[in-house]
Amino acid sequence: MKKVVLAFSGGLDTTYCAVWLREQGYKVHTVTVHTGGFDADELAAIEHRALQAQVASHAVVDARAELFDDCLRYLIFANALRGDVYPLCVSAERMVQARASARHALSLAADALAHGSTAAGNDQVRFDVAFRALAPSIPVLAPIRDQALSREAETAFLAQHGIQVPAKTTAYSINRGLWGVTIGGRETHRSDGVLPEDAWVLTAAPDARPTTPQDVLITFDRGVPTAIDGRQLEPVALIETLNTVAARYGVGRGVHVGDTILGIKGRVAFEAPAALTLIAAHRELEKLVLSRQQLFWKNILGDLYGGMVHEARFLDPLLQDVEAFLASSQRRVRGTAAVRLSSGQVSVLGATSPCSLMNRDVALYGESSRLWDGAEAAAFCKIYGMQDALLGRAAPAGPAAP
Amino acid sequence: MKKVVLAFSGGLDTTYCAVWLREQGYKVHTVTVHTGGFDADELAAIEHRALQAQVASHAVVDARAELFDDCLRYLIFANALRGDVYPLCVSAERMVQARASARHALSLAADALAHGSTAAGNDQVRFDVAFRALAPSIPVLAPIRDQALSREAETAFLAQHGIQVPAKTTAYSINRGLWGVTIGGRETHRSDGVLPEDAWVLTAAPDARPTTPQDVLITFDRGVPTAIDGRQLEPVALIETLNTVAARYGVGRGVHVGDTILGIKGRVAFEAPAALTLIAAHRELEKLVLSRQQLFWKNILGDLYGGMVHEARFLDPLLQDVEAFLASSQRRVRGTAAVRLSSGQVSVLGATSPCSLMNRDVALYGESSRLWDGAEAAAFCKIYGMQDALLGRAAPAGPAAP
Amino acid sequence: MKKVVLAFSGGLDTTYCAVWLREQGYKVHTVTVHTGGFDADELAAIEHRALQAQVASHAVVDARAELFDDCLRYLIFANALRGDVYPLCVSAERMVQARASARHALSLAADALAHGSTAAGNDQVRFDVAFRALAPSIPVLAPIRDQALSREAETAFLAQHGIQVPAKTTAYSINRGLWGVTIGGRETHRSDGVLPEDAWVLTAAPDARPTTPQDVLITFDRGVPTAIDGRQLEPVALIETLNTVAARYGVGRGVHVGDTILGIKGRVAFEAPAALTLIAAHRELEKLVLSRQQLFWKNILGDLYGGMVHEARFLDPLLQDVEAFLASSQRRVRGTAAVRLSSGQVSVLGATSPCSLMNRDVALYGESSRLWDGAEAAAFCKIYGMQDALLGRAAPAGPAAP
Amino acid sequence: MKKVVLAFSGGLDTTYCAVWLREQGYKVHTVTVHTGGFDADELAAIEHRALQAQVASHAVVDARAELFDDCLRYLIFANALRGDVYPLCVSAERMVQARASARHALSLAADALAHGSTAAGNDQVRFDVAFRALAPSIPVLAPIRDQALSREAETAFLAQHGIQVPAKTTAYSINRGLWGVTIGGRETHRSDGVLPEDAWVLTAAPDARPTTPQDVLITFDRGVPTAIDGRQLEPVALIETLNTVAARYGVGRGVHVGDTILGIKGRVAFEAPAALTLIAAHRELEKLVLSRQQLFWKNILGDLYGGMVHEARFLDPLLQDVEAFLASSQRRVRGTAAVRLSSGQVSVLGATSPCSLMNRDVALYGESSRLWDGAEAAAFCKIYGMQDALLGRAAPAGPAAP
Repeated sequence: MKKVVLAFSGGLDTTYCAVWLREQGYKVHTVTVHTGGFDADELAAIEHRALQAQVASHAVVDARAELFDDCLRYLIFANALRGDVYPLCVSAERMVQARASARHALSLAADALAHGSTAAGNDQVRFDVAFRALAPSIPVLAPIRDQALSREAETAFLAQHGIQVPAKTTAYSINRGLWGVTIGGRETHRSDGVLPEDAWVLTAAPDARPTTPQDVLITFDRGVPTAIDGRQLEPVALIETLNTVAARYGVGRGVHVGDTILGIKGRVAFEAPAALTLIAAHRELEKLVLSRQQLFWKNILGDLYGGMVHEARFLDPLLQDVEAFLASSQRRVRGTAAVRLSSGQVSVLGATSPCSLMNRDVALYGESSRLWDGAEAAAFCKIYGMQDALLGRAAPAGPAAP
Repeated sequence: MKKVVLAFSGGLDTTYCAVWLREQGYKVHTVTVHTGGFDADELAAIEHRALQAQVASHAVVDARAELFDDCLRYLIFANALRGDVYPLCVSAERMVQARASARHALSLAADALAHGSTAAGNDQVRFDVAFRALAPSIPVLAPIRDQALSREAETAFLAQHGIQVPAKTTAYSINRGLWGVTIGGRETHRSDGVLPEDAWVLTAAPDARPTTPQDVLITFDRGVPTAIDGRQLEPVALIETLNTVAARYGVGRGVHVGDTILGIKGRVAFEAPAALTLIAAHRELEKLVLSRQQLFWKNILGDLYGGMVHEARFLDPLLQDVEAFLASSQRRVRGTAAVRLSSGQVSVLGATSPCSLMNRDVALYGESSRLWDGAEAAAFCKIYGMQDALLGRAAPAGPAAP
Repeated sequence: MKKVVLAFSGGLDTTYCAVWLREQGYKVHTVTVHTGGFDADELAAIEHRALQAQVASHAVVDARAELFDDCLRYLIFANALRGDVYPLCVSAERMVQARASARHALSLAADALAHGSTAAGNDQVRFDVAFRALAPSIPVLAPIRDQALSREAETAFLAQHGIQVPAKTTAYSINRGLWGVTIGGRETHRSDGVLPEDAWVLTAAPDARPTTPQDVLITFDRGVPTAIDGRQLEPVALIETLNTVAARYGVGRGVHVGDTILGIKGRVAFEAPAALTLIAAHRELEKLVLSRQQLFWKNILGDLYGGMVHEARFLDPLLQDVEAFLASSQRRVRGTAAVRLSSGQVSVLGATSPCSLMNRDVALYGESSRLWDGAEAAAFCKIYGMQDALLGRAAPAGPAAP
Repeated sequence: MKKVVLAFSGGLDTTYCAVWLREQGYKVHTVTVHTGGFDADELAAIEHRALQAQVASHAVVDARAELFDDCLRYLIFANALRGDVYPLCVSAERMVQARASARHALSLAADALAHGSTAAGNDQVRFDVAFRALAPSIPVLAPIRDQALSREAETAFLAQHGIQVPAKTTAYSINRGLWGVTIGGRETHRSDGVLPEDAWVLTAAPDARPTTPQDVLITFDRGVPTAIDGRQLEPVALIETLNTVAARYGVGRGVHVGDTILGIKGRVAFEAPAALTLIAAHRELEKLVLSRQQLFWKNILGDLYGGMVHEARFLDPLLQDVEAFLASSQRRVRGTAAVRLSSGQVSVLGATSPCSLMNRDVALYGESSRLWDGAEAAAFCKIYGMQDALLGRAAPAGPAAP
């Protein structure tokens, strides 16, 4: 009897896969790679779902620290926000999940590796690319992609097998993780709808938020967040804490229209309280300590990094090159940024750093400088504009050729 | 008697220059290049200040439409926000002001061109570069830069000449314009202070804002905003209207740490209600209509554009090349974005466009697609990850050389 | 009886397709989109081959001027050389060929569009992408891709149908066009072989080249080559002339290892006498007239342009945005460059331009300047290095985080 | 009596400085930072010149290995050629020379640091920036810059002090180093002149070159050249050997028009036999082992690196970030490239590598593939062009806004 390892979230699609694969004669070994967003009760519920599907074994891998070390830290270094808003909640997780699932399959000498992605999204690419590269000898199965079933049809199939799926799960596809929650369905199928209040998972509704703002100090060491309000925390715990604190204020909600790897546009709602707060704080600190050219080029490579993670380019060696760049750029990113949480927003208050290049003892922007005098500044301006002046002496440009 | 044309804002520095230049024996011709942010009363007050300084003539040039056509439109196309927050309120204005001042000096056959910038900021570069390139035969004077006076000393000098300057002007250097207000002084001299509530100029204080959010529809044609809530408006009027509407909600406040052209860091507070609202709306519309690669590269060239404007590279022919790129990219940016104004924030609700690439009739992201089937998707994924698979067959990378 | 339009080069693959499609019951309408590299005799030979294959009709479209206007001009503007050596001889042609073939199919109301590309190369992508986008209602056929025949099997099949193919055509796949010749086969299947002398098509062998170098003056107007040695020529005639002149010296040979769209590496030999000569001359002229920043960014966007053409991104609107940038950058590229042709190489001698920014009347690099004095230069240097000096005052960087 | 440390090349300018500074009452301590291009006799001649100038002490620092480790290796990693031709022979040396001179000054507790650069070139910036950042408490002197003397006047001054300078040195400013020789003067002051044959320093004249080509194998380990024709050599010895071998063939000559830091254009002739040979070989090897995306982005960051070195941005922390990127990218650059030296040119023959991604066992570009079949390729092409197809369904673009 053949063995299949199935990357398992306990949601509608992967539960369908577990049952269906079993019916095809596979021994199904589910593996839930825990990348955050769940407590023990929820992990137990996922296991329960696997048992309902009568799998041969169910494993849980806690990959939260690996997720941080191998990806989230670089997303922070990069201040990575797709389309300037979306903190890539899903794609980093998928890479870690695919990797751990492939390891699980190799350790069990599985005959197949399965995932529950559809034919219309990005996740299939992330799983396929990682599975093929990391476990090249094991065939990949993707029943949902092959069968093109509606969520309603899957729900009905499971009901026939005695497994009830909550209605909300049928309406929305929800992905929870350390770096945030994404929600797709109904309104996000249009380019202009907004989620109803009760569709949000993590963040407080406007009328349930505290009315007094809360200021939070976030400390970074070489780009990695290390403390909140002076309290040292490991990265995973720090992010979980900040998710709780900022979610109370409804911070982190957003909607994003993005490009998928297969060429269509997709829209998702998301809740990422910690991610948006950390990036705002980190970015402010960077402005104080990085050189002008570092800030410019880090932005480009940061966008590149986010794009590669999104587009399943995890295994391209360029990713490591960009990571080397980003890690180097953080050598002076030490200090503390202050942010203010209020209803639905996080605002930057300021930052301090021993590596700060803003030095009021030597110069006040726009007012005075002890570093140069007026004649020196004038000479600088003159030579700074030299090429512009020379352009005026040469023959002028014509229009572009037709 | 020699003639000097002085770019005149009516503030402390330029009023000092007007008086001081007159005392050096110049006939002083002030020119106020109106780039927005002032009403008729305020323009009259600036003229009054010029007359107090006993200038030979005072001219006002309304350059608001020129400012939009020659720069703000491209800042919108670029979604240009320095450090992801600051909409470059000042630098675009300075270019237009310097250009119009140089034209004024040429038309008066002036013997000198003067500006009131200090030795410690960016504005001196913007004026010097433009003056030298556009009026190469006319010497540039910059009394404030040369004399390195404190704001207090300037205030005292003017008081001796019977000109009183308001205390707030002494404490903060405020720049008003169509694209926003910037405020520097006291708290912004540190990296971690915030302005007191009464230092803000344009935006409502938290307790004075409406409690009910307001949704606004903004229509764009080829990247240019053309209507608010369906009402057609010329760009300048549209921006002025939106500044008023969004300022009521306190939208557009921020603080930014930036790099100056001379190498020091500087911090400014700003209020840019219309700029932040327009860019949020424009960016959302772009996500719907631009190709994946356009979005990536437009971001890079948009950052470049913002940087060039900030760093006084107005006259580098590269600027026009980037403008050609940006204008081309907007050919399909037609449609309407909806945003919600609430206390201190603007949130995107969605967008619609006849050029939308999000087409729910052919594919729903993550759910289903009529454009391809599961086997085609699987083949795509396989070949998409081909180079990653080949990497696994080649000799592995070693560590980087020491 | 169904009609198929076949993009026809008269080579082994497309001749096979013509015969095979006819045998499947199609009326086959061949179209040869002439993108250079052939004289009238060779075009007649291609037509003869079509008639041998008993096609229903054969059309020739002279697309040389279209090729220049729509792509080669931008490859010159971009100084586009893949991997710093290969002038993209094939990909631009394919786009024009695919486009013209699709137009032909639409005009004939064809039931299918066919090309002769294999499953292992880039051309299939170029044809498929263009066919699907420009003639979305017409199905695409690709018999060679589907059947995975060897060149030997195709040769045998044609021999059975009374069509003899030269042995060289069996050994090498040769593509001729205005922008150069590419040669693949035998030695290029390895990463370290070189072609035997008799495999080269266009360029003189070392012992057949003139021993006296020849200097050539090439004049450009807004980036477009307009004259050789002072003689005005239309672009197509100019390139054809230069191909002849430079091929006598063996100029333009090379070998390139490149990445294909499907993820494998491929190697081709090429001969591009005119392309390499024009790009060398054009680049030299640009150095004289473009600003420092234009040169830097044009390089990046030029690489991007070359990559997009190579990777069949012809129809992505980004391509037009990049073209707008490139065309703008050429507004001042007017003047004449001198190059020297000698055995196997083209060397730049120099350039002159009315738009030159090199002005010996005002400054001699490294020697003297009338534009500034020593004190001004010293002040410039001091402020230019200001951020470096401030870095020395701040806390030092630690190592990157582990 | 005050002490000055003078960076000393023994050329016209620095000899003038030595004498002139002594006459101003300084004890002059010359330091020659040896960055290659000289043999023992020539170093002795430089010392002799220092003694003629009656300096207080003369020191020689062999910085060749430091030059390679800290800069040339990255120039190879980057395939750095300014304007696609010039291997940055001078700028890297100046950084190392400035750094070692500053260390010498600190160790002698000097009262001043001097260099012999003019006001019209780049070298003044390189020295000033490094001196100020590395020895911030020591004032910088630049007599040539201050006094703006002609080369003739300096020659005459030295003759009065009994020091004769060769006529060629008066006509041309020559800089010799490990990475090449640069030559400026006479013809390079125009944009279209070429050097006379006897002005070249290192490379054989056309009629003195061997008529039989020579093939050379160059082996790299993680991007660093380690062997020639199988013989292991330390980098400095390898470069010196290759300079000798390739100079016999006249390889490495060129002329380059570049932008200076102060905004004017400058033109130099150069001879860089080893640099051009190594970069050609290294680039070929990279094409075989790097991913498509690595090649694209490495090009951009390589250009950035070259630009930063050229423009004296040695101390910007961005440089280290780019170095980290480049070093990471070389992890798989292992193998051997073959090049052919013939009169005036170096041609690439091919390369082999254990990390090669070109694998003829699995796929032959353009012919056949065992990695996918025709149906998979067709599916890939279809989805690859999906966004282009969707663009055809949306409203078309209008022209760019006026």
